[in-house]
Amino acid sequence: MERILDTISCPADLKALGPSQCRVLAAEIRSEMISTVSRTGGHLAPSLGAIELIIAIHRFIDAPMDKLIFDVGHQAYAHKMLTGRLESFDTLRTLGGISGFPKREESPYDTHDSGHASDSLSIALGLALARDLNGDDNRVVALIGDGSLSAGMAFEAMNQIGQIKPKMTIVLNDNAMSISKNVGALAQRLAKARMNSHYLTASEKVISGLGSSEHPGTRKVLDAGLRFRDSIKSGFLKGGMLFEELGIKYLGPIDGHDMEVVEETLRAADRFNGPVIIHAVTTKGNGYEPSLEHPDIFHGIGPFDPETGAPIKKSGGAPSFTKVFSQALIAEAQDNPDIVAITAAMPSGTGLDAFASAYPKSFFDVGICEEHAVTFAAGLALGGKLPVVAIYSTFLQRAFDQIVINVALQKQHVVFCVDRAGLVGADGPTHHGAFDLAWLRCVPGLRILSPSNEAELVDALHTALYMDGPVVVRYPRGNGIGVPIPSEPGTWPLGESVIRRAGGDVVILAIGRMVNEALVAAEMLHAQWGIEARVVDMRWVKPIDQAAVAAAAKLPLLVTLEEGTLRGGFGSAVMESLAAQDLQPHVLTLGLPDAFITQGDVDSLMEGVGLSPAGIANSIAAALGKAE
Amino acid sequence: MERILDTISCPADLKALGPSQCRVLAAEIRSEMISTVSRTGGHLAPSLGAIELIIAIHRFIDAPMDKLIFDVGHQAYAHKMLTGRLESFDTLRTLGGISGFPKREESPYDTHDSGHASDSLSIALGLALARDLNGDDNRVVALIGDGSLSAGMAFEAMNQIGQIKPKMTIVLNDNAMSISKNVGALAQRLAKARMNSHYLTASEKVISGLGSSEHPGTRKVLDAGLRFRDSIKSGFLKGGMLFEELGIKYLGPIDGHDMEVVEETLRAADRFNGPVIIHAVTTKGNGYEPSLEHPDIFHGIGPFDPETGAPIKKSGGAPSFTKVFSQALIAEAQDNPDIVAITAAMPSGTGLDAFASAYPKSFFDVGICEEHAVTFAAGLALGGKLPVVAIYSTFLQRAFDQIVINVALQKQHVVFCVDRAGLVGADGPTHHGAFDLAWLRCVPGLRILSPSNEAELVDALHTALYMDGPVVVRYPRGNGIGVPIPSEPGTWPLGESVIRRAGGDVVILAIGRMVNEALVAAEMLHAQWGIEARVVDMRWVKPIDQAAVAAAAKLPLLVTLEEGTLRGGFGSAVMESLAAQDLQPHVLTLGLPDAFITQGDVDSLMEGVGLSPAGIANSIAAALGKAE
Repeated sequence: MERILDTISCPADLKALGPSQCRVLAAEIRSEMISTVSRTGGHLAPSLGAIELIIAIHRFIDAPMDKLIFDVGHQAYAHKMLTGRLESFDTLRTLGGISGFPKREESPYDTHDSGHASDSLSIALGLALARDLNGDDNRVVALIGDGSLSAGMAFEAMNQIGQIKPKMTIVLNDNAMSISKNVGALAQRLAKARMNSHYLTASEKVISGLGSSEHPGTRKVLDAGLRFRDSIKSGFLKGGMLFEELGIKYLGPIDGHDMEVVEETLRAADRFNGPVIIHAVTTKGNGYEPSLEHPDIFHGIGPFDPETGAPIKKSGGAPSFTKVFSQALIAEAQDNPDIVAITAAMPSGTGLDAFASAYPKSFFDVGICEEHAVTFAAGLALGGKLPVVAIYSTFLQRAFDQIVINVALQKQHVVFCVDRAGLVGADGPTHHGAFDLAWLRCVPGLRILSPSNEAELVDALHTALYMDGPVVVRYPRGNGIGVPIPSEPGTWPLGESVIRRAGGDVVILAIGRMVNEALVAAEMLHAQWGIEARVVDMRWVKPIDQAAVAAAAKLPLLVTLEEGTLRGGFGSAVMESLAAQDLQPHVLTLGLPDAFITQGDVDSLMEGVGLSPAGIANSIAAALGKAE
Repeated sequence: MERILDTISCPADLKALGPSQCRVLAAEIRSEMISTVSRTGGHLAPSLGAIELIIAIHRFIDAPMDKLIFDVGHQAYAHKMLTGRLESFDTLRTLGGISGFPKREESPYDTHDSGHASDSLSIALGLALARDLNGDDNRVVALIGDGSLSAGMAFEAMNQIGQIKPKMTIVLNDNAMSISKNVGALAQRLAKARMNSHYLTASEKVISGLGSSEHPGTRKVLDAGLRFRDSIKSGFLKGGMLFEELGIKYLGPIDGHDMEVVEETLRAADRFNGPVIIHAVTTKGNGYEPSLEHPDIFHGIGPFDPETGAPIKKSGGAPSFTKVFSQALIAEAQDNPDIVAITAAMPSGTGLDAFASAYPKSFFDVGICEEHAVTFAAGLALGGKLPVVAIYSTFLQRAFDQIVINVALQKQHVVFCVDRAGLVGADGPTHHGAFDLAWLRCVPGLRILSPSNEAELVDALHTALYMDGPVVVRYPRGNGIGVPIPSEPGTWPLGESVIRRAGGDVVILAIGRMVNEALVAAEMLHAQWGIEARVVDMRWVKPIDQAAVAAAAKLPLLVTLEEGTLRGGFGSAVMESLAAQDLQPHVLTLGLPDAFITQGDVDSLMEGVGLSPAGIANSIAAALGKAE
């Protein structure tokens, strides 16, 4: 039997469906989503929780004329299926396939390329004001989670929305989670609103009790409700006070899985000539038992058994860098009670969940607040603690100014553990850690260590903890190479590299996990062209080993190798060192090109940019005139 | 007669003063401040407005054991005078003198080096939690302006403060201004609270009517007041609801110039075992007629006549880059109604105030919200507008991630006008624009134009407006060189440089206003050593003129010259181009060192880092073996 889902070629097709058909459709989407993501991996739990919201919004608005803006965008899978991407949905997050996030080049229904949290309100405000300036009258609807609402940028946007008061609708998809349990006073406040079951029930009765949206009574009741809420907002409806204080009309809480209620509330909001926030309560992972039980694990998950929800693990393998960091930090804290750890809504992703269990008083999850995380760490350092801030490379970009002004300028001893540095794979361009070496390297006084394997990570962390001033330890997503972890961590001498392979024809100065690729490439060079490559694990991007650079300059070819942009990155650091030492060797810089890198498995992506061992070997042989 | 001020060697000395002596002291500080700043220049209006708050806080707390954290810090002049820096106060903001901001190396009473807005709450929270972990019991007091409160980071901090609820006091210095009139819904809300004169009066009566702090009745009344406010917070005390919603106890509004009231309220807050925000209403520029009339002009001002407040202008001179930008943008908007302009609380500093007058509907001041400013601009661009975002180099650091993800990744045509790029002078290390070329250059697809004079600025702006994708126009603080402004703006061919002086012994590839210094240096090289230097105005930092670089590589010495850090900056861009073209010339890179640059007049600072024309000439002659 044909599914309703198969009959939906665009959102307009949704408008003909009746309430029960919508419920069937939601179930079909849910089933399709579980089935596909169990093979591709992806952000299952957020997308499961937003299916009904997305159907209801698309039934109410007229996209793409009306604009729907997703926040982060990992909850948009239903939107993808309903906007012509059902057939390609099984290419999700693969090389050449559809993105795990909204992408304008994929569809006119994707208003904005999402990926980082908390930008939807600013984008929506810009679209609303552009609309007003242009004299248009399209709707603007932003769909934002309660986790994203904790970020400062969302507050900044609300502060301006509440002042200018353009017509726009914010749907707050409140599932009490960001990736893990949401934190912060605002989250606590929303939780109180959710628990106000009296109002939740009343609201449902008011709206769904009246039947279809065409019922003439509906509008009246909702209008009265708006006024009612306005007048008693200082009473028991405390969940919305914060928004009302900021000048944004609050409607809710409503059941975000009841499509009729959502649609009616959207209609009510639409009649108000100003900004409205609809507080929709949803359940992350809704409708799939395993993800309901473990919404954090199913937030972003690899392939799994759809029957049981059990992850399909690749057999064996070395521990991940994250895991090694996690264990090493716990061991360090046993010796040093001043260590405190800070994350920005990523306790499990950064491995700090284990630290939190071991040292709950010394652990702080600040929410999706990278700026505050860094400055808060500076305050802890001022107070005599030793803060370790673990944030992914791409998200740490949010805290650049704080690193410069609050940490580095003041020579605060804060240790930044920059996970997901380099290419991350399926999450694509918004999540690759491609730029950190460039933007971190310009910060005066900052030291940057880049371990090449999991054993070096333990040493690098230890070294960073017992230096002074700001220090960055940069390491990639994924597994180590299987070397034994030292039982006692060692200390790296400041700015000293290590020669990992001898050779006199060419020298490869490599950093991070590219050291391993360099070693493989060196064997290829030896085998295929008889070229003997010296391989140096530079370890420090800053300060750089000047002597190693000078020694390298004596060889016929000096190659720099990094998993990061060539614009201002490690290769540039080597060239700066050469210029400072007045050396002019033949230089070949290998790294990421000056472009956003697409999604796909990391090996394929690396091959695509010429950074597979074979690609590296070939580039070097060509530079030496031995290959094309 | 000796002033009371002269008897205060540390804040503890304040505690012996009676109320009337405090008022005399405040007047003495005010007088001293006006007198000194009229000679040195500085942030007069903010500091005039905070004198009484600072006296009252220091009377109540026991610094430096108790911690006082200033936000931004330009309001801290009274604090400097009261903490042993009265005698050195006339060296304010000069080379080798005391900083215009709190600086830990100056005094143990300076808890934290301030400079950028909105970090005080995060720092204070870190200090409070470090204190609790350490088992100490010192007080933590943050003093933050209402302008700073608009930034997202302050909200992020409050969100965590309200969750963890450590004992700490936030004094909100509400003068309804940031630099100019404060904006945003929060500001409107605070304004309503301020206008609640009934409560303001009542509060004053409750406290000051009871006389000295030793009066046994005071505490009772204040305790009752706390409870009273708590119970009726949903009533008429709307100003504080937002804070109470976030879990932070609200006290106020109070008269921030009434030291007895402030001290009593601090005492009340101190008895509460959790976070309290005291809403103190002050007047920016208080006690000095000219600054009361023009608090925005006196926010940060150069030398002036203390009698009249009239600025002591240097005679003549070319218009500032800011002024030229301001006029050029207005002219452009006459031809292009899609142009909209965005600033982050800097309408006058960026010159956008004139645009706002000419095109009020197309102008948006978002408050101290650089993150939102950039993403909001991306939304406007999505909606078909042509956004011009004018933000100082050092503050744009806050929006790095937004530039990468919301603008560049999506190829949005947003024009960033980056003012104050390079050294800014007296404001020192938190305000120099030293890093932008490094961190902007790594952003894929971004184009960076750097005009060398005010006429080129007009052309660069025009070029940027009629390109596609994200574009940065970078220009310095201060005046142009006096070249005529073109009546019709020209367009720069993409990535093309211009040779400004012929020569065959050395080539100087220069960017921005350093082109002019290079030309002077070239004449010195000619006159002193007979060296003929080619000088190239590179104009584009990205994309760089590859052909010009290749041509330059044929000369005996290639010099790069920039007013920015050498770590990843323009010089590195040239070296990357050389490596890409497999060229190995003799390279000398001149620019800012890998260090934070101190305060002082720009010429002295530039000389100090070897970037005066003589310094440049000498370095080049030395590299050619002609000088030491």
